[in-house]
This record gives sequence, C-alpha cells and structure tokens, in this order.
Amino acid sequence: MRKLRANLAYDGSDFHGWQSQPKLRTVQDVIQETIDRIINESPIITAASRTDAGVHAHYQVIHLTIENPISLTDLQRAMNALLPEDVAVLAVNEVDESFHARYSVKSKMYLYNIKNASIPDIFFRKYQWHIPYHLNLKDMQDGGNNLVGEHDFTSFRASSCEAKNPIREIFQLSISSHDTVIQIAVSAKSFLHHMVRNIVGTLVEIGRGKLESDDAGKILKAKDRNLAGPTAPPHGLHLLEISYDEDY
Amino acid sequence: MRKLRANLAYDGSDFHGWQSQPKLRTVQDVIQETIDRIINESPIITAASRTDAGVHAHYQVIHLTIENPISLTDLQRAMNALLPEDVAVLAVNEVDESFHARYSVKSKMYLYNIKNASIPDIFFRKYQWHIPYHLNLKDMQDGGNNLVGEHDFTSFRASSCEAKNPIREIFQLSISSHDTVIQIAVSAKSFLHHMVRNIVGTLVEIGRGKLESDDAGKILKAKDRNLAGPTAPPHGLHLLEISYDEDY
Repeated sequence: MRKLRANLAYDGSDFHGWQSQPKLRTVQDVIQETIDRIINESPIITAASRTDAGVHAHYQVIHLTIENPISLTDLQRAMNALLPEDVAVLAVNEVDESFHARYSVKSKMYLYNIKNASIPDIFFRKYQWHIPYHLNLKDMQDGGNNLVGEHDFTSFRASSCEAKNPIREIFQLSISSHDTVIQIAVSAKSFLHHMVRNIVGTLVEIGRGKLESDDAGKILKAKDRNLAGPTAPPHGLHLLEISYDEDY
Repeated sequence: MRKLRANLAYDGSDFHGWQSQPKLRTVQDVIQETIDRIINESPIITAASRTDAGVHAHYQVIHLTIENPISLTDLQRAMNALLPEDVAVLAVNEVDESFHARYSVKSKMYLYNIKNASIPDIFFRKYQWHIPYHLNLKDMQDGGNNLVGEHDFTSFRASSCEAKNPIREIFQLSISSHDTVIQIAVSAKSFLHHMVRNIVGTLVEIGRGKLESDDAGKILKAKDRNLAGPTAPPHGLHLLEISYDEDY
C-alpha cells in the first residue's frame, strides 16, 4: 500500500462542492473516478477542506492510499489528461503513513474577493462578489480585528455545522483593497462550516454602515447566529494556502 | 436624432463574435435587442472592432443613433440591468455626428495571453492559450521586432479577409513575461482579419524553435500566407484599448 498526497486546483463554479453526493457533480467523485480509470482502484479521497458548492480552490490537498505501483509522474500526467478542464493536479507525492490531509494541517488561508464598484468586472463575475454600494474599508478592518485570536465562533457557524467544539483560532484576518477590489484574507488551523462566509457577510454589513465596527466583537460574545450578517455568496471564496507541520 | 458612443466589455467565450449572424448568439445582436427592449428602437450598432468568435473585449467602442430622449445614465443603467452577465456597458456618451466608432480610431491595442507551463491555470483556461512546451522569449521578441512598422501583411491575413489594402502599420509589438504567462501586445490603427492571431501563431513557432527569429521578416516579404505559422486560438486574444483623435 502506498499513501499519496496530491495538491489540486479547481474552479468551483460547476461543482456541488468537494464532498461526494448522489447524482451531483462533486470534486471528490471526479477525482475518484479518474483514478479508477487509470489504475482500476477506487480509493477513499480525503481533503484538507470540504469546500462548499461554488467555492474555488487554488490549492487543495488530498490524501489517498493505492496499491498500484504506477510512477507519480505518470499518475499526475494521466490525471491531468483525463480530468475535466476545471480541475488540475498540481503535484503528487508519496507520504508517510501518518500524514493526514485534514488532521495534519497547521494553517489554512482563505481569500474572499469583493468587487466594490457600480459595474461588475465581467471577467471575474464567477470569482468576486459584486457589491455596488460603497464599503468603508477602515470600518471593516476595525471590525475584523475583533475576531482575530481564539474565540467561540458560534455566532458565525452554519446551523448545519457538525463540529462538536465551536472554538477556533483565527491567526490572521487582513483586509486590503486594490482599485475597486477588496480582498479579505483569513487564516486558521480549521474553520466552522460557513465561518469565513459569515464573517465576510458581517464585515460587509459593517462596511455599508448597517452595523458598527464594534458590533463584530459584540456578536462574537453573544454566541447567537441570528445577530451576525448574512452568509456571503460562495463564488467570492477561494481556498489559497494550506501549510503542514515540517514533518510533511 | 442623437448619436451615442458606448464603451463595452464582454467575455467572448459564449459569443459567436461581434457581428450579427442568423441563429447565433452575437454581441451585436444582444446589444441591439437590449436597446430595443428599453426604448423600442433597433438602431444599427457599429463597433470599432468586429471581434471573432471567442475573442474577448475589455474595451470595445460602439456608435449608434437613436431618437428617444432617455438620459444617458438611465440608458446605461437599464442596459446593465438587462444585459446578460457576460456583457457590460462601461460608459455612454453623446457624440458629434462626425464620430465613427471604427473610422475615427487612432490606435487599437490587442493583448494575447499565453500560459507557458506544463499545467494550465484552470482559472484562466478561457483567457489564455496553454502551451506546455518551452518558448524562447528572446527569439520571439527578435522575431516580433521584424513586424513593427508599415508593411504588406498579406502573409498574416486570413484567406477570408475582405480588406482591399493589405498594408498596415504596427505601431508597437511588445512581448513580456510574468512568471509563466507570456503577453504579446500589438497596436495599430487597424488590423487585417486574423492578423494578430496569425502573428502570434508565427511567433510561437519561432519561440519553440520550428522557425528562426529572422523568418518573421522573410515571411512578411514573401507575401504568402502558407509560410506563416498557424492561427493562434481565439480565447487568448483580448481587445484592450482603443484611442481616438483628440476631437472625440
């Protein structure tokens, strides 16, 4: 048995997310079916992040175990030749049995893109949330600073979230703007379901003046999902970086 | 009668080019139908460039004549509300009767994007020509320099090209690279049909060593389309800038 790690990129637009679902096109199924076509094995594929429908991955990490002795170069080439054009295998490596794509993660970074202008950028319409009303960047930054660190993020988790522990630590939350594009980068070891999109939705409410920047901290303390802003749409969300302990 | 100029952007992926064609989705038809829905007029729409199927426009200029007294702001807003998501109206202005979107052009600039890496960037798969083999940038630049200036571009025109005069002047042809993306920018007052894509196809043959950089000049002098490289695919081509005489 060989344990493999692969780094993937995929455009989430036409996928119903990472996780396998009956009758729906998912990244997990597409990867598994492609491996099956190449080596006639259907290994379980475990990903660092189970991205939701519409969310993009510039860097997703998976692990799987196979028996076939195919070379890593051949496996990567065959996968890229057979995969649809909205998925690519960036690298394939053989890893130690102890490696786990999700549990071994040290830090993950998501980037959320907002196009803040009256007219959307049509070339990025599937990759940016278009917001035509003015957003105050300074207020959003002040609001975001309240969320950095270890907190109970109950107010920012989806009702469907299955995590037992609502405590997470945000290592960094930075908001920058380049012309009319606002980028919100959030890093943590792991996130609750919809956590980044609910944070973004709340920061946008702050940016447009419907909430004050202090409210971000108050909402956090209240541990009540009803107080936070709406969930930002998935297409602005990009999984950008995943780092592992130095052992891997 | 009011003569209007509008600046457009469109993603060419799902269009059969600019020019109206029976039963095919074209930008010209989509614009005309949208104006018809708003003011119940179907003016002839003239564009600076009749872009081919699959070619993108970040900045296309059109002119049209209408009778309706609708304000320019309302017309732009209504168009952007009704147009499909792959077209946007960037600006609408009232112009002098003498303005002509094509004939008044002083200079147009096209950008051609090449992804020169073993694996394509899936997020730009509809906007870059993916070339996995190595391209020598210096050779391409030397080849391109032979084409700058006023020449008979018969060797680089499509057999379908209807222009009477094959002489064109390339003001600038610059080739730059950023990581694994090669960008070829070409500017001229006007181009022959497929001229930029045939130039790019030839420069790629030079970059991969199938032609020498000196061959670009020789092909030009031979006035024979059979000697030039293949036509580069449309999806890497972007209409980027159009400038007019100062009067407009």
